[in-house]
Amino acid sequence: MTELTTATGGGMLSREEMDAARERLPILYVDVVPVRVDDQGTVIAVGLLLRVGEDGQIKRALVSGRVLYHERVRAALLRHMEKDLGPLALPRVPPAPQPFTVAEYFPTPGVTPFHDPRQHAVSLAYVVPVEGDCAPQQDALELTWFSPLEARDPAVLAELMNGQSTLLLQALAHLGV
Amino acid sequence: MTELTTATGGGMLSREEMDAARERLPILYVDVVPVRVDDQGTVIAVGLLLRVGEDGQIKRALVSGRVLYHERVRAALLRHMEKDLGPLALPRVPPAPQPFTVAEYFPTPGVTPFHDPRQHAVSLAYVVPVEGDCAPQQDALELTWFSPLEARDPAVLAELMNGQSTLLLQALAHLGV
Amino acid sequence: MTELTTATGGGMLSREEMDAARERLPILYVDVVPVRVDDQGTVIAVGLLLRVGEDGQIKRALVSGRVLYHERVRAALLRHMEKDLGPLALPRVPPAPQPFTVAEYFPTPGVTPFHDPRQHAVSLAYVVPVEGDCAPQQDALELTWFSPLEARDPAVLAELMNGQSTLLLQALAHLGV
Amino acid sequence: MTELTTATGGGMLSREEMDAARERLPILYVDVVPVRVDDQGTVIAVGLLLRVGEDGQIKRALVSGRVLYHERVRAALLRHMEKDLGPLALPRVPPAPQPFTVAEYFPTPGVTPFHDPRQHAVSLAYVVPVEGDCAPQQDALELTWFSPLEARDPAVLAELMNGQSTLLLQALAHLGV
Repeated sequence: MTELTTATGGGMLSREEMDAARERLPILYVDVVPVRVDDQGTVIAVGLLLRVGEDGQIKRALVSGRVLYHERVRAALLRHMEKDLGPLALPRVPPAPQPFTVAEYFPTPGVTPFHDPRQHAVSLAYVVPVEGDCAPQQDALELTWFSPLEARDPAVLAELMNGQSTLLLQALAHLGV
Repeated sequence: MTELTTATGGGMLSREEMDAARERLPILYVDVVPVRVDDQGTVIAVGLLLRVGEDGQIKRALVSGRVLYHERVRAALLRHMEKDLGPLALPRVPPAPQPFTVAEYFPTPGVTPFHDPRQHAVSLAYVVPVEGDCAPQQDALELTWFSPLEARDPAVLAELMNGQSTLLLQALAHLGV
Repeated sequence: MTELTTATGGGMLSREEMDAARERLPILYVDVVPVRVDDQGTVIAVGLLLRVGEDGQIKRALVSGRVLYHERVRAALLRHMEKDLGPLALPRVPPAPQPFTVAEYFPTPGVTPFHDPRQHAVSLAYVVPVEGDCAPQQDALELTWFSPLEARDPAVLAELMNGQSTLLLQALAHLGV
Repeated sequence: MTELTTATGGGMLSREEMDAARERLPILYVDVVPVRVDDQGTVIAVGLLLRVGEDGQIKRALVSGRVLYHERVRAALLRHMEKDLGPLALPRVPPAPQPFTVAEYFPTPGVTPFHDPRQHAVSLAYVVPVEGDCAPQQDALELTWFSPLEARDPAVLAELMNGQSTLLLQALAHLGV
């Protein structure tokens, strides 16, 4: 949930306009759990980013970001994956638009398991296999692959912020691993 | 897609602010296909509204509307169903947040099967059984129940606007009827 | 996974024939997580049965059983719910056939999280809200309702057999609670 | 629905035993809609096989077949895709076990949209992108790629047997194309 890039112009928002919208409207997001699969399609690893948050703290995160005006959900998924994983990640975005769940991040903690102090964000969540080389970009410091078992380790889950540990567990449950 | 009610105040938008947001951000919607089920849960009828559109034309429509700031998706579903079907409809909102599909309404026709001249709306679509009495409210003139076969009639589908015929067919396909 | 009733006759199997089939074919099952929902459709409790297993041990279990020859999946869901929860449970079987997951019970432990020493069973798993009074029947001793939080208690999960704790956690993840 | 290969031995059935089982038990199947996707993951074509049926007639079909004893669903998907599309098809089996629908083929016509005169088959249906070269094998004469629009052509749909036209339309609806 670190989509900060905004620009003025056709369909784009200035920082001030975006801040105003964030106080008035739910903002549409996508969340991605990047995975490695074996040749049967079974998930063997999930990728978590290491990021520097706005507060300067280092934390783990899923690939996540805003859907822009006049942008397809599918294009938003690819844009955020390229932003965080680099241009050679070769993501295989699922062919159907049905997300495995919808995560509702509320500015007020406790309404749902998901929390975003900046805004009310509603996020379509997808599992996306990546087949290429991942190279963290921009504010992502590192991408670490965890086996499904390692990803469930309470120490790993505790490093995820804003309830994304819940989303990761939901993804693992959906995957049946 | 006729959610026009907006108000000024905490988390609410003036008409001007909403219009401005609609030119800059995807707006989060929900679409509902109301259904009647038999005691095995099989769908025996789908409900379509008759509405007066903004252009004065009468057309058929699904239950549809915006998700408000700080509103749960589930609450938005219930609010729009009550608005359109009345307070005695007894909707059974599904317990899981996974929609059966996501409909992307673009202001530009042809980008997707869905079109909304006013805005870029991204809609989470659900099938919701209703068990009570439905009484159309506000700008909904009438609710008509169609068997799954009747609902597929090209004459019926042609009365749906903005690509909602596609969404109805997707719902029927998902239901396996 | 306690469907033992078989009978000889049209489309039915003797115990010997069923035993033979169980060594040669995957057997189609359904698993049901019965839930109580509030008037928004949010799950407030999940129901677990207390059963006497074939080994005489008491254990917790989901509603589960075989799909019979020439029986609709939907009818099998209702039959097993009535068998275990009684005729007044008023289950609301979901209108769409898409299960939230598929559980593969293998006779060999460790192939999947699911295990059934008697057979290779492949089970379509559904969450089903029940609105009426549940009265355990036949080999089900008791039905206990747990809040989603209580249901995740390791002590409760440990009482489920054959990997059904995994299935329960998958259901809770799917429900977003 | 042309899985005929059976063999005697560990977990395998003689033709006679399989015929007997088919009169007594629902048989677990998988159905696959093979698709080509572009680099955004959007489906650009669906693949339909041309087969010689048991009656000698040529008809179109989806990739389809039985799940064997002690075989994972995932392995069955890959086995049937390799059998029908050849070893170089490079299928991308989805990482999650949730099918997009469940098709119930009844020996009696009219119970569901799906019909199989030989048996009661319950089929888990998946959309599977294939990235490699497809070369029809065994009783599959040809694989033809159709655009989503072409696949909906009544003349094409009429060539599918046993209700698979319904399953194809369900897949296209699920894909949102």
